Amino acid sequence: MTVPARRRYDTESLLEVAVAVFTERGYDGTSMEDLASASGLSKSSLYHHIEGKEQLLRLALERAVEPLFAVTREPGATSGRAIERLEHVVRREVDVLVERLPYVTLLLRVHGNTEVERWALEQRRAFDKVVAALVREAADEGDVRAELDPAVVTRLLFGMINSLVEWYRPKGSGRGAHPRMAPAQLADAVVRLAFDGLRR
Amino acid sequence: MTVPARRRYDTESLLEVAVAVFTERGYDGTSMEDLASASGLSKSSLYHHIEGKEQLLRLALERAVEPLFAVTREPGATSGRAIERLEHVVRREVDVLVERLPYVTLLLRVHGNTEVERWALEQRRAFDKVVAALVREAADEGDVRAELDPAVVTRLLFGMINSLVEWYRPKGSGRGAHPRMAPAQLADAVVRLAFDGLRR
Repeated sequence: MTVPARRRYDTESLLEVAVAVFTERGYDGTSMEDLASASGLSKSSLYHHIEGKEQLLRLALERAVEPLFAVTREPGATSGRAIERLEHVVRREVDVLVERLPYVTLLLRVHGNTEVERWALEQRRAFDKVVAALVREAADEGDVRAELDPAVVTRLLFGMINSLVEWYRPKGSGRGAHPRMAPAQLADAVVRLAFDGLRR
Repeated sequence: MTVPARRRYDTESLLEVAVAVFTERGYDGTSMEDLASASGLSKSSLYHHIEGKEQLLRLALERAVEPLFAVTREPGATSGRAIERLEHVVRREVDVLVERLPYVTLLLRVHGNTEVERWALEQRRAFDKVVAALVREAADEGDVRAELDPAVVTRLLFGMINSLVEWYRPKGSGRGAHPRMAPAQLADAVVRLAFDGLRR
C-alpha cells in the first residue's frame, strides 16, 4: 500500500496542503518549513517539486481564477439578454465557488504584497468588471429595477456570493454547515434571492 | 484655538483613534505604544484615561453592539407580520452599519482571542439568531419564497449587508466609494434587492 504515500508527492496534493496552510496562516505568515512539515516532506524534497512558495500560490490561485473566467466565455454568458447572461454568470460563479472552495477562499483573502498576489487582485477586479458591465447592460435594457443603482447591485451581489466561502461547507463539516444543501440548490437559492427576492 | 488639542484627550476621540488602529493592525497586533503614538499621548497619559487596550476594545465594540440590539427592540421590529419586522430590522441594520461604520467593521473582524472579543462574537451570534428567527417565522407565515431555505436566506442576507463595511465609504473617500449614495438610499437598495430582487 504505497499509493497514499506516493500521492503526497504530486503537485496536486502539495497544492491542497499549501492552500490549507496559506488560508490558515496567511501567505505572508507561511514559510517553506511550514509547507514542508504540513506536507510531510523535507524542505529539500519540497524544492525538488517547486521553486518556492510563490509558485504554489500562483498555481493555487489559477485554480480559482481560470474557471471563473471560463464561465464568462460560456454560451450562456455571451448570448441573449444581459439579464439572462448575468443570471448565468451568477449561477455558475456559485458553482465554481463550491467546486473550488479552498482556492476561491484563498483568492478572496489575498493581500497584494507580492507580484502573484497583485496579479490575483487584478484578475478579481477584471472579473468584477465583467459582472458590473452585465448589471449595467441589463439596467440599460430595462431589466433591472429602476430604483437600483447598478454599481450598488454589483457590490451587493458580490457580498452575497463571496460570503459563501465563510459559511458554506460541503457535506456538513465544520461550523455553520448546511449539510443537506447540494451545490445546485445553493446556486438556485442565490439566483432566486438576488433576482426575485426573498418575499413571496 | 486650544479646542482641537483638548479634544484629543476625550475618551471619545481616543476611541476613534483606537478603532482605526485596531482595524488596521488587528487588535492582537496593537500595543499600548501604538495607541499612544497614534493618539499623540504619552503612554502614561494614556493609562490616565484607560486601564488598557481591552477596555478601549470593549467600549468600541459596544458602539456597534448596542445600537444593533436597540434595533431589535424598536416597534417596527416587535409588532406586525414577521416579514415586515424582518424588513424593518434589515433596513435599520444598514442604518447602524453606516452610522457606526468603523465600530461595526471592527466587530466583524474580531477573532475571539480575548474575553472581550469572545463577548463580541457572542453578541454577534445573538443578533444573527434574532434575524434567523425572523426569517423562519416569515417563512412559516408563508411570506418567504417557498423554495428558499430560511437558514440560507439568513446567511445570504448577512453576506450582503456585512459586505457594506468592505466597500461603502461615506462621502466619497477611499477606493470603490459610492459618493452620491445617501445612507437611506443604501438601506433602500439593500431592502429592495433582498426582498424583491434586482429583476424588474
